[in-house]
Amino acid sequence: MERISATIAKIEPLDNDVMNRVQFRLDNLTKPLGSLAALEERAKQLAGALRQEHPPLPQKAIILMAADHGVAAEGVSLYPQEVTEQMIYNFVKGGAAINVLARHANAELVLVDVGVRANLPADLPIQHRKVAAGTANMRFGPAMSQEQVVQALHVGLDVANAVIDKGVQAIALGEMGIGNTTASSAVTSALTGRAPHDVVGFGTGISSKMLMHKIKVVEEAIAVNRPDPNNVYDVLAKVGGLEIAALTGVILAAAARRVLVVLDGFISSTAALAAYRLTNRVQPYLVAAHLSAEPGHKVILEHLNLKPMLKLSMRLGEGTGAALGLTLVDAGVKVLNEMATFDEARVAYALQDLPVT
Amino acid sequence: MERISATIAKIEPLDNDVMNRVQFRLDNLTKPLGSLAALEERAKQLAGALRQEHPPLPQKAIILMAADHGVAAEGVSLYPQEVTEQMIYNFVKGGAAINVLARHANAELVLVDVGVRANLPADLPIQHRKVAAGTANMRFGPAMSQEQVVQALHVGLDVANAVIDKGVQAIALGEMGIGNTTASSAVTSALTGRAPHDVVGFGTGISSKMLMHKIKVVEEAIAVNRPDPNNVYDVLAKVGGLEIAALTGVILAAAARRVLVVLDGFISSTAALAAYRLTNRVQPYLVAAHLSAEPGHKVILEHLNLKPMLKLSMRLGEGTGAALGLTLVDAGVKVLNEMATFDEARVAYALQDLPVT
Repeated sequence: MERISATIAKIEPLDNDVMNRVQFRLDNLTKPLGSLAALEERAKQLAGALRQEHPPLPQKAIILMAADHGVAAEGVSLYPQEVTEQMIYNFVKGGAAINVLARHANAELVLVDVGVRANLPADLPIQHRKVAAGTANMRFGPAMSQEQVVQALHVGLDVANAVIDKGVQAIALGEMGIGNTTASSAVTSALTGRAPHDVVGFGTGISSKMLMHKIKVVEEAIAVNRPDPNNVYDVLAKVGGLEIAALTGVILAAAARRVLVVLDGFISSTAALAAYRLTNRVQPYLVAAHLSAEPGHKVILEHLNLKPMLKLSMRLGEGTGAALGLTLVDAGVKVLNEMATFDEARVAYALQDLPVT
Repeated sequence: MERISATIAKIEPLDNDVMNRVQFRLDNLTKPLGSLAALEERAKQLAGALRQEHPPLPQKAIILMAADHGVAAEGVSLYPQEVTEQMIYNFVKGGAAINVLARHANAELVLVDVGVRANLPADLPIQHRKVAAGTANMRFGPAMSQEQVVQALHVGLDVANAVIDKGVQAIALGEMGIGNTTASSAVTSALTGRAPHDVVGFGTGISSKMLMHKIKVVEEAIAVNRPDPNNVYDVLAKVGGLEIAALTGVILAAAARRVLVVLDGFISSTAALAAYRLTNRVQPYLVAAHLSAEPGHKVILEHLNLKPMLKLSMRLGEGTGAALGLTLVDAGVKVLNEMATFDEARVAYALQDLPVT
């Protein structure tokens, strides 16, 4: 826990002086005041994180944490648990959606086994950081121990610090794990007090009948485990997942190193909720890329006071929405760095010259 | 009018056979069925337009129509009319937001003077297609004649056909014209029957007091001119704008040539509404990039049954939202062309193998 406390203690606010200078430049660019809205916000946020008035196009990585969930045995997904393993091979071969969108966003894809049930070959080119071979079925007891939660958080710290050491300035979150919308629903319900039926969604595309069953499974997992809403470690251990805990660690390390974190959908946002409950100082470093089709995602983003930039009705995970979000961070930086000011363009009537109306 | 009728007569539906084959491939890619939602829709739409089962990354252009508005004399904008001209110089020099985002989207920027009040030097590297030196003030009578509307529509046909002849496969719409949210509000109100106060917005960022005045100006323009809601030419002549009419022509020509049209904000969507009222067969070729902060934009997109992909609270115009929309079309095409199918990836459990639940 000491490493986690030490990481949290390092998290500083965004640099207000830098952001004020960036705001001044944004307000003098040849456009109506504030008219590029979220793009301007992204540029200012990156500048404030990096403490650079003229931030570069950030070097980008997508950290994809993979793990299995014992609760998958309850039939809460359209896909069997083996698909977690099979998708890792697909990621390695480059055929998954996140491979395509990582290339689109010019971001490195970092694959991590933090808890896949299957034994993956040691020579598979991923980071082998398995804490356990999947979690236990939370319907009948804790998904894992608090010690395992801490180990998974440490994996997140390690992986994030390693990419930041290599120069990465914006991290997008991704995940793979059959059953992880069920775990995310339970964590979100436990931490926010919202009822399971408010946060459970169709996941991979289950039927209405399966949805009712999934809600019941989450209700039972919470009833059986009684997670303490004031103890993030307890909640993650009892009804969480290894990839959720590891992403929580990524967020803490990134914020401590002044690196932006672009959230993906429901699962990565559940990790953000957990991180936020450990310290609300992570909030200024977070970017909501998109609003997924999962109802729990909206609940979390409202809780974190984050506005999603994209509404594509996507519900795939892997980091696909976050990858698209990275392209919007780039667009914002380009606006800041490449647009002319009113003076430079000799456009006569900057807003400050106008009579007050 | 014959050219316009002939163009409309050429508009065919998207190719359903091609789209069915694309849907089959999308459903076999290694992801839950439909989980990339709007990205999948974009790929399918482009394929259906181009009649290509494996569409290429489209060659892209942003057509920016510039014109002035007599109604600017009423003090409906924060900026004086001269800013239209000044911004054209800024576009030519490459310092405006649309220059930055056109580069970001890898799209050619095509600048057209279809009605700027100022005389622009003949050697300025833009397309010189001025129909009139701005419109008249619609508060006191028609903004222009129906003949001028037809001329502006023809400019749109010409410019669109020229870029399509050069190989462009997706066109984004942009505009510049101080006062054009006022004209767009009047056109939208006239064509939809919605009251001016439902569609008039803050434009460049006017005060609440100016907003009340702007609503009154639109109400008076409609009362004085009595545009016929069933006659698009009459509406565009009485309360429209030269850039709005020209963009309407771009949309008709693009649809007739099976080219996607990515809308920007309120003004370009007003042109889409006008085109849709001439023929609803344009609808399948339209893409709503973003939802702008202008209330009339939402009214139009609902009318056209289009779902915006981005919600950035932007309100700049020029084609900035449309440029970002082009990048999402590219992302959709990449997903279709670059992802592996379940068979290719040997992921065992494609949806079709699962028991029906």
